[in-house]
Amino acid sequence: MIQGIGASSGIAIGKAFVLPNWEWDLPEQKIDVADLAREFDRLYEGIRTSKVEIEQMKDELREVVGPEETSIFDAHLAILDDPVFMNEIQGIIQRQYKAAEVAVKEAIDHFVTMFDLLDDEYMKERALDIKDVGNRLLKHLLGAPEITLPSDTQPFLLIARELSPSQLAHLNPNHVLGIATLAGSTTSHSSIMARALGVPLVVGIESKLEETIQTGDLLIIDGDLGVVHMHPEESLVDHYTGKQLRQREKKQQLKQIVSVKPVTQDGKEFELSANISSLKELDVALSSGTNGVGLFRTEFLYMDRNRLPKEEEQFEVYRSVAEKLDHKPLIIRTLDIGGDKQLDYFELPEESNPFLGYRAIRICLDKKDLFKTQLRAILRASHYGNVKIMYPLISSVEEVRAANALLEECKSELKAEDIRFAENIEVGIMIELPAAVLIADILAEEVDFFSIGTNDLVQFTLAVDRMNEQISHLYEPYHPAVLRMLKLTIEAAKRSGIHVGVCGEMAGDLHALPIWLALDVDELSMSAHAILPVKERLLSLKQEECRALFDELLRCRTSAEIHELLDVSQDAPIAAARERAAVSKPL
Amino acid sequence: MIQGIGASSGIAIGKAFVLPNWEWDLPEQKIDVADLAREFDRLYEGIRTSKVEIEQMKDELREVVGPEETSIFDAHLAILDDPVFMNEIQGIIQRQYKAAEVAVKEAIDHFVTMFDLLDDEYMKERALDIKDVGNRLLKHLLGAPEITLPSDTQPFLLIARELSPSQLAHLNPNHVLGIATLAGSTTSHSSIMARALGVPLVVGIESKLEETIQTGDLLIIDGDLGVVHMHPEESLVDHYTGKQLRQREKKQQLKQIVSVKPVTQDGKEFELSANISSLKELDVALSSGTNGVGLFRTEFLYMDRNRLPKEEEQFEVYRSVAEKLDHKPLIIRTLDIGGDKQLDYFELPEESNPFLGYRAIRICLDKKDLFKTQLRAILRASHYGNVKIMYPLISSVEEVRAANALLEECKSELKAEDIRFAENIEVGIMIELPAAVLIADILAEEVDFFSIGTNDLVQFTLAVDRMNEQISHLYEPYHPAVLRMLKLTIEAAKRSGIHVGVCGEMAGDLHALPIWLALDVDELSMSAHAILPVKERLLSLKQEECRALFDELLRCRTSAEIHELLDVSQDAPIAAARERAAVSKPL
Repeated sequence: MIQGIGASSGIAIGKAFVLPNWEWDLPEQKIDVADLAREFDRLYEGIRTSKVEIEQMKDELREVVGPEETSIFDAHLAILDDPVFMNEIQGIIQRQYKAAEVAVKEAIDHFVTMFDLLDDEYMKERALDIKDVGNRLLKHLLGAPEITLPSDTQPFLLIARELSPSQLAHLNPNHVLGIATLAGSTTSHSSIMARALGVPLVVGIESKLEETIQTGDLLIIDGDLGVVHMHPEESLVDHYTGKQLRQREKKQQLKQIVSVKPVTQDGKEFELSANISSLKELDVALSSGTNGVGLFRTEFLYMDRNRLPKEEEQFEVYRSVAEKLDHKPLIIRTLDIGGDKQLDYFELPEESNPFLGYRAIRICLDKKDLFKTQLRAILRASHYGNVKIMYPLISSVEEVRAANALLEECKSELKAEDIRFAENIEVGIMIELPAAVLIADILAEEVDFFSIGTNDLVQFTLAVDRMNEQISHLYEPYHPAVLRMLKLTIEAAKRSGIHVGVCGEMAGDLHALPIWLALDVDELSMSAHAILPVKERLLSLKQEECRALFDELLRCRTSAEIHELLDVSQDAPIAAARERAAVSKPL
Repeated sequence: MIQGIGASSGIAIGKAFVLPNWEWDLPEQKIDVADLAREFDRLYEGIRTSKVEIEQMKDELREVVGPEETSIFDAHLAILDDPVFMNEIQGIIQRQYKAAEVAVKEAIDHFVTMFDLLDDEYMKERALDIKDVGNRLLKHLLGAPEITLPSDTQPFLLIARELSPSQLAHLNPNHVLGIATLAGSTTSHSSIMARALGVPLVVGIESKLEETIQTGDLLIIDGDLGVVHMHPEESLVDHYTGKQLRQREKKQQLKQIVSVKPVTQDGKEFELSANISSLKELDVALSSGTNGVGLFRTEFLYMDRNRLPKEEEQFEVYRSVAEKLDHKPLIIRTLDIGGDKQLDYFELPEESNPFLGYRAIRICLDKKDLFKTQLRAILRASHYGNVKIMYPLISSVEEVRAANALLEECKSELKAEDIRFAENIEVGIMIELPAAVLIADILAEEVDFFSIGTNDLVQFTLAVDRMNEQISHLYEPYHPAVLRMLKLTIEAAKRSGIHVGVCGEMAGDLHALPIWLALDVDELSMSAHAILPVKERLLSLKQEECRALFDELLRCRTSAEIHELLDVSQDAPIAAARERAAVSKPL
């Protein structure tokens, strides 16, 4: 069994297909002068084929993740038209009598080395682009086997060092039952796409996997627990087959409550909303009967591209989501980069502790133009639906006031330009820092709503980086201190009469549901996949009983005591934590 | 003006001496066979001289920082006796007819490259040792000018890329008025030594300084604010001269209250204690009339060496401190490495966010042998004074119980070995995580005392890495959330009847004093230099008035409002914060 990180939930059982790395066997002999023209023809043909292929991938990817995500392919196409790159290749063929593939390889190496030498993140990214597109060209010149996957075989589990967006664009979910990769994170585009396609994915598996697994080996990929089982015994296969079956049955069963209102046994209704990152995910959310979008993560509009998205581009996306929601609420969180989310084209400082660093609202209040572009786009979209603005990582009243001042500037500008927007757009903040919890009563008087970000809140309260394997056992949402913080925050909001929601992973955690009902939170916003399971449990609970349970929880001195009361598995706390996390994995 | 980090307080005004880097002019021609014997003689003579010099430095350094800090020199001596290193040098002379200095240089390069290739932090450190000792040998062979400082000139300000412990051992505080270095941190040994010597030190200055400053330039080094003024105008020199004079007068004046009890105007007595890292610092603390040691940072026993300190070594240090304190309380904090404190010989994992990572009590509960060695040493020392144990970075009751279980194991072992110790030794914890604050009432029932670590507490509450320049304006001890956390913690301790102190920088911050008096904290533990200024202000305050002020503080909605009430400078909040920090800079 190999431990990784579950990036897309579900179980896959089947034979492995280990994706080979691109490796080249280049011809050593020089070409004859007489063959020069042929080499040039081969080069141009290779370029043509590569371009067609890239255009195809671009089209396919657009279907899956939307037009905003395909700019990487434009960059690749531009390289194939770049005269400097082409001159270099042509020169090597013409003057050194080398074969086209050798010339391409040397030109790639030349530019990659040169770009790498420039100590500049942007240029390093460009070097990667050249390598990627150059390898594609090489593949066509060498007639090397296509790295696309076997489509005539039985469905398989894909094992790869890493998957590029272009490789994922070729994935056929009918053939690929599950994926495990060495590289990758839950927030990468590959992970988002896997979740959108509904393919179980485990990332960050240990490197020994590649050596251990051969194509054809029987494997189980468990995207819920983030593990890969190699050479599973029959009993384990049976166990997982049963689990898979039950998951499918469960899914069918849950479909029956899509239109049922989320009301407790004693008649209290709650809002169940979705966290989304792209238009595509909205479909899953809507088909799960979402109340709206409690968290639209806009940073994905900014990632995997080579420049900042313009106001117009952002506006189009926000408007599409708002319109598709048809006046259901849409909370758009302003840019939350920094920390573990980096932009290729926007150089952030090297930081010793990025989670405690220059990120989110801190960047936006510093780079006012960048922030105002987004605020303008959101304001413009607010005309087309029920749009609200949410600022992340707020630690003080001062930050709220500074952000609101910029929002007012944007409103004045739009008014002067005669552009329509919702003048009374609601403005809220994420409560995800201990500081914000402690002054929740003060903050509540400055904003229209709170949304509790439990992931960061737990992280900072306990000073535990949840990505750090070495201390993952200390990342404990069910800590007495966390419960008290949740209580402080929600009660402060209630006293001020503002709307309060939860959008961290605990919102979609079935075990946590009694806490939210007891505290009378207004909204739970979660991965679209979690909405129906949460609703199902909610329908069976009584708020009054949850309140009694919560009183008991408050008397707990340790997390173990809380686990027991909430029926969180005791014998395997880490696996249980993973299981809890997997349920509400961000789409 | 160049901004750095103040690592040793005080002001220095004078001419710069820019320390040249070691650069060598090596002979190019080969040597005659007839001269081989002479080259060997030169080599052996160089080794002898180097050894004498290293022994001298070791002796000098021992005086300054104590015997526990000189092991680096033993490592250097061992290299000069290493047969592999020597064979390499001799071989180059004998077989390639190269001069001794060339052979030494090539041998250094050979080993440094080889050790660097091994991707191992320990070996990289050894490569540095070889370079350092090899350069010393080269210096003697080349008859190069000694890098020691001019002693016949006027006193000067030393500017260097970085200072090694050996260079600092040669420092004459009568000649070196102040130091500014490009590299370095406030926790390095160089910084500790500078503070022990009372020499103002600014570290981490921008690299342009080296190019901008010439030997002989007039400079001002301001160790309080962490800045270096180049080519200061006459008015600035006057300003600083005046400030320097006032500081000296103030120091004289404060000496008069060394024996005065720290009692407020309305008769309430508080304990003022010292934070120390070494025996040497204890002298300063005692001469300032300290109540005891509220924080003994043991990690410095573990740093700048090549192996873990043995139980016996630790015991000797703890016992010396305990005895020197003559039954005044001594709170020994167990190992607090990780985060920004690394050990050369103890490989910690690479972490994305080390402040939120594997550190302090987390390491100790994981590496039980390492922890028990320290606990045994502390227990043994407890027989010789009023010793207490303090665990850092506690986030839960579970951690306290796990640490105490190991402590009980150590007690049983010592009993079985018939070794004496204080059976009822008090055990306390640092309150420095938001989680600990929120469950302070629960934790108070598990321990004998609290000590609030304000530095980490502010850092995690606000999610701001205080070392990160980009967001340093957000590191705000006077945040309404911080005040509430302090109140929660101290009131919880009071209700449980346990002793509560403060050992973070706010403890020695004059502006914060009314807060501590209002909350009726038992002990303030600070840099020894801060004790007398704090006592002076304390003598002038009334606890009753502080309580009234604190009620007003609790009503503040922003840090700016708190600053105003506490009279923290408004116009330059960052400079003011630095000034506050400088007062209580860890000794």
